[in-house]
Amino acid sequence: MTGIHSFDNALDLQPIDATRMRGRTQPDWANMVGPFGGITAATLLHAVELRPDRIGEPLALTVNFAAPITDGEFDISLKPARTNRTNQHWIAELSQDGDVKTTATMVFGIRRDTWSDDETQMPDVPQPEGLSVSGPPLVWVKQYDTRYVENPFPTEGSAPSPSSRTTLWVRDAGQRGLDFAALAAMSDIFYPRVFLRRGEFTPAGTISLTTYFHANGQELEKLGGDFVLGSAHANRFADGYFDQSAHVWSRDGALLTSTHQIVYFKG
Amino acid sequence: MTGIHSFDNALDLQPIDATRMRGRTQPDWANMVGPFGGITAATLLHAVELRPDRIGEPLALTVNFAAPITDGEFDISLKPARTNRTNQHWIAELSQDGDVKTTATMVFGIRRDTWSDDETQMPDVPQPEGLSVSGPPLVWVKQYDTRYVENPFPTEGSAPSPSSRTTLWVRDAGQRGLDFAALAAMSDIFYPRVFLRRGEFTPAGTISLTTYFHANGQELEKLGGDFVLGSAHANRFADGYFDQSAHVWSRDGALLTSTHQIVYFKG
Repeated sequence: MTGIHSFDNALDLQPIDATRMRGRTQPDWANMVGPFGGITAATLLHAVELRPDRIGEPLALTVNFAAPITDGEFDISLKPARTNRTNQHWIAELSQDGDVKTTATMVFGIRRDTWSDDETQMPDVPQPEGLSVSGPPLVWVKQYDTRYVENPFPTEGSAPSPSSRTTLWVRDAGQRGLDFAALAAMSDIFYPRVFLRRGEFTPAGTISLTTYFHANGQELEKLGGDFVLGSAHANRFADGYFDQSAHVWSRDGALLTSTHQIVYFKG
Repeated sequence: MTGIHSFDNALDLQPIDATRMRGRTQPDWANMVGPFGGITAATLLHAVELRPDRIGEPLALTVNFAAPITDGEFDISLKPARTNRTNQHWIAELSQDGDVKTTATMVFGIRRDTWSDDETQMPDVPQPEGLSVSGPPLVWVKQYDTRYVENPFPTEGSAPSPSSRTTLWVRDAGQRGLDFAALAAMSDIFYPRVFLRRGEFTPAGTISLTTYFHANGQELEKLGGDFVLGSAHANRFADGYFDQSAHVWSRDGALLTSTHQIVYFKG
């Protein structure tokens, strides 16, 4: 491949002043309305990564999708709400023409060696090499190589599913190496669980997304551009909203992220 | 009971100006360091509930515990980052003497009748009436009637547990009726999962807490001061941090909240 990778292109930010940066939506990350939520989450995380006064690595990211981002430029304003010795709390706002479209909080922190254990185990699934590539018919999906293990995107005539669980392998289509920003985006790879339960498309959109980063930077670097496994399920659908929780593992079974979201739906 | 309930007392806020309110920590909600995180979460949620320009009911709450709150007065500043037709996005900061201690984002929204389903089922457990009351030796715990179904707080000589799951019934000790603020607090009832896995106390503290509210206000009102069932587990412990996820159900099995947090620990 030549030139800048499409993911890095979407994350390209230019400083405006000490607290603000400017970016631009990229056509190859387009969703139904505005850009893929995962690329917005990744861009906000990357904005903090670019800050010279940033401490440590990402631990937690919450993104609130307040209004659709329109195609074109956007500004990200960042505030380090609190800097401690080993961690730092950030507040971010993404706006267009002064209009707030997205808010976020992020916690970065210094990791240190402690007792550790992977309690939530990766399900026993077939390797990605034997599975076919598929995905919803959306522009941004082409940026990934997604191979569904169970419950792919419903097609015309799909029956409602009694379970909301989808499990899939995913890697960057250009096999760009995994880092925190890439992982933030991939943690939003799961199509809305209501589609699966109803067996059909219905208008839906993420309202708030929270991702916890378990892996450290060195661990991610070793994974390169290999597949990771994601598995998502919903807990309750009621009154026009539902939540979904997911986990993302490396191929060798290390839990990389736990990720949760609350989603609006019609119907 | 006479006088104001201890929970309402802790949530008492006085307006300072159009964007700020003042509260005060209450001794009966004290934790190891500062107040119980759940009461801070409830107070932030209640601050938005008090705003005359608030739209709808709580859908999502993220609280970032940036630094310990010291005993005494605190100020909460609120900003409606975005107001849409059916939902509203808030940013909050809790500070003491101008020093930010807690940040939060909240999404409130209007609920409307749609297809609904409770997918994550309540585990089959004994009723609370036959179980004994117990809890960690902390001041705030006395505000609740907690009855453990599995894996109570470790005591001297407890063995490490292979599972991080704790399940318990909880109600307000004074049987104050359940509302969103009470549910926000109860969703943080679970002691740090690392205690259970290690079979001992170790310094630990929540860094970021996210709660999704599934129940609507009418549904909560019908529950009164009855017990709710909570069940929590951890996913991965690594490099000084772990996450825990939990669900809270009404006695008749309706999922009231899904709640997640990332926790710092030593050892």
